Amino acid sequence: MKIYSQTQIVGAMEMNVAAQRLVDGFIAYSRGQVQVPPVQNFIFGQANGDCCVKSAWIEGSEHFTVKISTGFYDNPAKGLPSNDGMMLVLSAKTGQPRALLQDEGWLTCIRTALAGQIVARALAPRVITGIGILGTGVQARMQLEQLMALTSCRRLTVWGRNHMALESYREFATSLGFEVETTQDAEQVARHANLIVTTTPSREALLQRAWIQPGTHITAVGADGGGKQELDVDLVASAEVIVVDSIEQCRRYGEISHALKQGLIRQEQLIELGWLLAGETRGRENDQQITLADLTGVAVQDAQIADYAMQACAEALPGL
Amino acid sequence: MKIYSQTQIVGAMEMNVAAQRLVDGFIAYSRGQVQVPPVQNFIFGQANGDCCVKSAWIEGSEHFTVKISTGFYDNPAKGLPSNDGMMLVLSAKTGQPRALLQDEGWLTCIRTALAGQIVARALAPRVITGIGILGTGVQARMQLEQLMALTSCRRLTVWGRNHMALESYREFATSLGFEVETTQDAEQVARHANLIVTTTPSREALLQRAWIQPGTHITAVGADGGGKQELDVDLVASAEVIVVDSIEQCRRYGEISHALKQGLIRQEQLIELGWLLAGETRGRENDQQITLADLTGVAVQDAQIADYAMQACAEALPGL
Repeated sequence: MKIYSQTQIVGAMEMNVAAQRLVDGFIAYSRGQVQVPPVQNFIFGQANGDCCVKSAWIEGSEHFTVKISTGFYDNPAKGLPSNDGMMLVLSAKTGQPRALLQDEGWLTCIRTALAGQIVARALAPRVITGIGILGTGVQARMQLEQLMALTSCRRLTVWGRNHMALESYREFATSLGFEVETTQDAEQVARHANLIVTTTPSREALLQRAWIQPGTHITAVGADGGGKQELDVDLVASAEVIVVDSIEQCRRYGEISHALKQGLIRQEQLIELGWLLAGETRGRENDQQITLADLTGVAVQDAQIADYAMQACAEALPGL
Repeated sequence: MKIYSQTQIVGAMEMNVAAQRLVDGFIAYSRGQVQVPPVQNFIFGQANGDCCVKSAWIEGSEHFTVKISTGFYDNPAKGLPSNDGMMLVLSAKTGQPRALLQDEGWLTCIRTALAGQIVARALAPRVITGIGILGTGVQARMQLEQLMALTSCRRLTVWGRNHMALESYREFATSLGFEVETTQDAEQVARHANLIVTTTPSREALLQRAWIQPGTHITAVGADGGGKQELDVDLVASAEVIVVDSIEQCRRYGEISHALKQGLIRQEQLIELGWLLAGETRGRENDQQITLADLTGVAVQDAQIADYAMQACAEALPGL
C-alpha cells in the first residue's frame, strides 16, 4: 500500500482532470451505477467533534474508497486544525489496500470546490457581472479559486460576520487579481453579484428572495447536515431550475429539504446533477432565470477524487 | 500516525489482556454506552468479493476505530489470501489519526476467537470431556488455540468436508498436544464433545438436536451474515440458555434469527453477552443444560482490540 501526504497529493493533481473525474462520477451516480452504503456518523459531545465515514464504489471500476473525515471545533484553541481526514483506496478485484491518502481533509475540500465549478459551468448566466461569496473560510477560498477557470469576471463581493476574517479574505482575493468589496450585509452580495456561492455552516437563512437579481445562479454548499440552512425557503421555491447532487440525500437535509418539507416545491422538479451533466435534462434556458444548485456532498465524489489522486501521485512520484 | 504491520501487532499483544479488553467492551455495549453506526457493505459480484466497514466508539474513551475488512474468495487461485483488512484508530478528543493497524484481517480473527474463549469460560460445563470443532480454516484453528487457556482437556473431534484440509488440521492440533479424531460426519463431533465451536460459512444446518449430549455448550461463530446457518432450529429452540453478542444484530442474522423468525424462541429469552459478563444475568445453572452462544461479531470488539493493539505496539516498539 502506498502512503501519500497532503503535500504530495496537492502537488500531483491537475484540477481539470480531477473535475472531469467528478463529472463522470456524478453521471454514474445518477444512473444508479454506484454502490453507496449508509454514511457512518459519530458525535463526540464533550469534545465538540464529529466524524463521518463515507464509502463508494462505481460498479465495474477497479478501486473503491473509504473516507474518514473529522471535525473537532475546539481544535483551533489547541493549535490544531478543525478538520482532518484521510481516504483509503482498495482494489475492487482483490480487496487489497492500494493507497492511504493522508490528505487531512484537503481532498474533501477540493472535490466540493470543483463541484461548485462544475455546476456553475452548467448553470451560470452567459455574462457574469459579479461573483458573490458568503463565508470567509477554506471552502470560501477554494470555491473562488475554482471559479476563476470559467469566467474572466474579477469583481467580487464577500460576506462574513467577522471583520478580521473579511480583511484576511480581501487580501487573499486581491492577490488572485480580484477587485474586492467586503460586507457584513448579505443583501449587498445579492445586489452586486449574479454568480453566488454560499459556504457557511449557518442554521438560519442568509439570502432573501427579494434581493436576488434576475438571471442569478446560486450554489449552496454549506448545508451538509441536518439543521443547516443558508437560503430562505421562498428563494428556493422561486428558483426556476433546481439542481441537486443527490435527490435522495437532499430530501433529508440541505437547502432543498426545508422547502420540500413545507410543500413549497415538489420532488419532481428537482434535477439531479448527473442527469444535467449527461445532457439528459435541460438546465438554464435564458438569462432571466434564477438557478440554484444544492450540493450536500456525495461519496462518489470521494471515490473519484481519491482514485485520481492515487493515480496522479503514482505518476508524479514513481520512486515511492 | 503510527503504522504497524501484522507481524508487529501479533508480536506485541498479550492474549489475556486483549480478552479483558473485549469483556469490558461487551459490557459497555450491552449497557448502551457504545456508538455503533450502521455497517457499510459492498458486494463485488464479478470478483466474488465483499467488503464491510465497521466502526465503534465507547463513549468517554480516548479513541474510536474504523475497521475495513474484505473477503475475495477467488484470491487463493491468484496466490493471495481471501481475507484482508486494516483498522484505523483515531482520537476521540481531536479527530486526529493515531494508528493504522495493517493487520490483514488478523485482529478480526483473534477478537472472534477470544470472544469464543470468553463465552466458553462463562458457559461451558464444569468438566469438559471433549472439544469439538466444525470447520478447518483459520478461525477453526484460532478458536482451538484460545480454548486451551480455559481447559486441560486435549481430546478433539474435528469435522470438515475436505479430507486434505482435515489432515492438515490434524497436524496442527496434534502439534498443540491434542489427541485428534477427524470426521466428515458432524454427528461424531456431537457424540464425542461437550464443548463445540462451529466456524463454517455453511448455509444449511450441520448439527442436529438429537445428537447433542446433555450439558454441552455450543458456540456458533460462522453465521456472520444473511442466509448462513450452522445449527438446526430445533437445536437452537431446545437450548436452555441462549447468549448472543448483540440482540439487535442477532435478530437480523445469525443462528438465532432463523428460530426467532419461525417463532420457536422468543426475543425475551435471549441473554446479551455483556449482561452475563457483568453478572447481571445468570448463565448455566447445572451440568445438564445445553447452552448456546451465537456470536455474529460486533464493532465494539474491533474498537477494543484495536485500541489495545495500538497500545501494545507502542510499548513494544517505542522507537517507531
